[in-house]
Amino acid sequence: MSEIEVLAEALRVGETTAETLTRRALARIADQNAELGAFAVVDREGAVNAARLADDELSDGIDRGPLQGIPVAVKDLIDVAGLPATRGSAHFAGNQAAEDAACVRILRAAGAVIIGTTVTHEFGYGPTGDRSWHGPARNPHELSRMAGGSSGGSAAAVAAGIVPVALGTDTGGSARIPAAMCGIAGYKPAFGRLPSDGVFPLAPSLDHVGVLGATARDCRLVIDALAPQHSAPHSPVGTVARIGWLESASQAPVTQAVADLTRRSLSEHDVTRVSCDASDAMWEAFGAIQTSEAFAIHADRVRDRPELFDTEVLDRLRSASETPGWRYVRALNAREAARAYISGLFEHFDLLASPTVGITAPLLGQREVTVNGSSHAVRSTLLALTSPWNLLGFPALSVPAGFVGQLPVGVQLICPPDREDLLFTVADSIVPSAADA
Amino acid sequence: MSEIEVLAEALRVGETTAETLTRRALARIADQNAELGAFAVVDREGAVNAARLADDELSDGIDRGPLQGIPVAVKDLIDVAGLPATRGSAHFAGNQAAEDAACVRILRAAGAVIIGTTVTHEFGYGPTGDRSWHGPARNPHELSRMAGGSSGGSAAAVAAGIVPVALGTDTGGSARIPAAMCGIAGYKPAFGRLPSDGVFPLAPSLDHVGVLGATARDCRLVIDALAPQHSAPHSPVGTVARIGWLESASQAPVTQAVADLTRRSLSEHDVTRVSCDASDAMWEAFGAIQTSEAFAIHADRVRDRPELFDTEVLDRLRSASETPGWRYVRALNAREAARAYISGLFEHFDLLASPTVGITAPLLGQREVTVNGSSHAVRSTLLALTSPWNLLGFPALSVPAGFVGQLPVGVQLICPPDREDLLFTVADSIVPSAADA
Repeated sequence: MSEIEVLAEALRVGETTAETLTRRALARIADQNAELGAFAVVDREGAVNAARLADDELSDGIDRGPLQGIPVAVKDLIDVAGLPATRGSAHFAGNQAAEDAACVRILRAAGAVIIGTTVTHEFGYGPTGDRSWHGPARNPHELSRMAGGSSGGSAAAVAAGIVPVALGTDTGGSARIPAAMCGIAGYKPAFGRLPSDGVFPLAPSLDHVGVLGATARDCRLVIDALAPQHSAPHSPVGTVARIGWLESASQAPVTQAVADLTRRSLSEHDVTRVSCDASDAMWEAFGAIQTSEAFAIHADRVRDRPELFDTEVLDRLRSASETPGWRYVRALNAREAARAYISGLFEHFDLLASPTVGITAPLLGQREVTVNGSSHAVRSTLLALTSPWNLLGFPALSVPAGFVGQLPVGVQLICPPDREDLLFTVADSIVPSAADA
Repeated sequence: MSEIEVLAEALRVGETTAETLTRRALARIADQNAELGAFAVVDREGAVNAARLADDELSDGIDRGPLQGIPVAVKDLIDVAGLPATRGSAHFAGNQAAEDAACVRILRAAGAVIIGTTVTHEFGYGPTGDRSWHGPARNPHELSRMAGGSSGGSAAAVAAGIVPVALGTDTGGSARIPAAMCGIAGYKPAFGRLPSDGVFPLAPSLDHVGVLGATARDCRLVIDALAPQHSAPHSPVGTVARIGWLESASQAPVTQAVADLTRRSLSEHDVTRVSCDASDAMWEAFGAIQTSEAFAIHADRVRDRPELFDTEVLDRLRSASETPGWRYVRALNAREAARAYISGLFEHFDLLASPTVGITAPLLGQREVTVNGSSHAVRSTLLALTSPWNLLGFPALSVPAGFVGQLPVGVQLICPPDREDLLFTVADSIVPSAADA
């Protein structure tokens, strides 16, 4: 059972109330947020009012489904009416959202209680989650380490037990990466499945709304609420899936411990190693597209008020401005070629899988990491295995696979848009384990 | 009546034969091509054989429609099986097309006689038509002047009376510009209407196959053969169209004589001046898209064998490589905004119109021109009024509007894809006139 289902049941049998759940979440924020850095803004009054409304409705027999009365957090890139919408940046200090983003509106209509907004890497432009106007999001498993990003605050809020689910965004892994590093589930459905109105863009052709939850099933309940029209055929529990295990490519270093643990987590299935010839092309195309689209969003801010950016984000944007147009054009062509290649793999495999991230959470501010004896940039190491699925828009889910030492590790499952049900069925079968660091 | 219809009738009543027409075309090439520079390759034997086949079929009662037995020329960017396919470049010296391009295949099936290939500006990358591995295409009205480009050879071949129609391409005006400057008709249908298989690309999201013909009606007969599925509702002769006359923008200088002559050519219609707020944005977007897409095609050649390019084309390509990716992304957004803006104009007007080119044909090699007392680059002056319709993909037709001094001038008509019939009806109503230079 998911946490949401446990709570939904407790609410309906009178074991708890939405207000109790909300006050418990608020109390945990009061206790932990100063050191955790998960929340940017807490809407104490709005949350309590929404919780009371949920309680009243449930008492009156108005049942809005499993999210009713459930505390939810929303990444600071997604507008929540009346709350500050800073996008993690001094550029939007003092900015207040006029309207709810479409996905927030739907959650509210389902009775969810919006507790507050969570810390994002500035403008979502960084998988480390440690460069935000609100300060770094920290990993609940070890506070000196990064939560990951850019949805670091949402991951920390769920992993710390403050909320069972949170909305995030995912442009190169921004929901799945922090989910993996914080030991929770993170899901990015197919491109365009969730509405993006009211979500601040990073790179529009790669941007997805994502969900971070205590379990994969929690993610799915939120997705089903946000986009109920996309229900997939039922896959029975115990289904043995044919899974293609993607060999790691040069730009995607994976430690032996992470490789073994994640591979082992799928032991109930028929797993075959696959060498993915499109890896290098996908990585290059992702980079050209993300940089070009991101700078198109921020060019005027970089020109007019560069001093308001975090210095690292500013450096990255300036570097992003240098991608030539012809490389963007070639990247669009390479994207189509890679989509055809991966679609071909899906004729032989039900799902594809890999580690979500090849390493465990680095220290806050860490920018180089040694993997298998070689030094690698932290940023590319974090993004390498998740970003291909933003490029191609396939659904991708990170599920906890266990621990290496004290730090969580995630396994990533990827499917075609019409196999989402099987994806979640396989996620439920995953067997976490532990390994020495 | 169109030239094609006159010839088709003559063929069917026995006044002439396809072989006679073909031999006449070949004789004219022998007489004129050395000074005109219209043809790159002449397929004497293939043409005579095709003409004899057409004659045999007509004798046997096999009637393939109006193009049967008609001599046609094909721009050297469009593959003709068995003929050299140089794309106007030393890079493809010795290259021979293995198959017909789709549009050539259709013309052959309609019985057309392919006489040979016509000179293109190297890789189609230039509206002046005077930089080709085959030498410059010259204007039949004054041989010291450019035919225009990049379909300069096709325009010269039709204007010199060698063939009644020729295939061209049009990425920024490459069919319409030389048509206007050579005193014939040139048509670029809606983006994607004509098949592009076997056509060497310049900038794929702007590239169109185009047709150059003695009259607009000749162009239409070819278009109807190439894409018969797109017949539009009939507009009766004498229809008075509401025409929006586009005011010239800063980047599109127009001489007073050209402005007056072209405007006067539409005197039978209800013409209203329109200030086009999207002009600057369309010009900038066209530039960003054309440069990025063109360099994506040629980057490897520029890196590996730069010395094989014409020096001016090489300079342009190197400059094209500098367009940043973010400007390409913004250009794609601007394109959509402009499409909406122009679609709005089409709610008030049946057609839009402007001069095709704001000046008459410059001298070969000329790169600066004085218009209304200011100096302008020839290239942008030639492209400014035609390129918006490549950006947006709307059908655009250049029709002869008369002469300024000894040199022809064209008027351009633009329509939504579903008003092509009205476009050609209005084209038939155009009254050419003359003005002093």
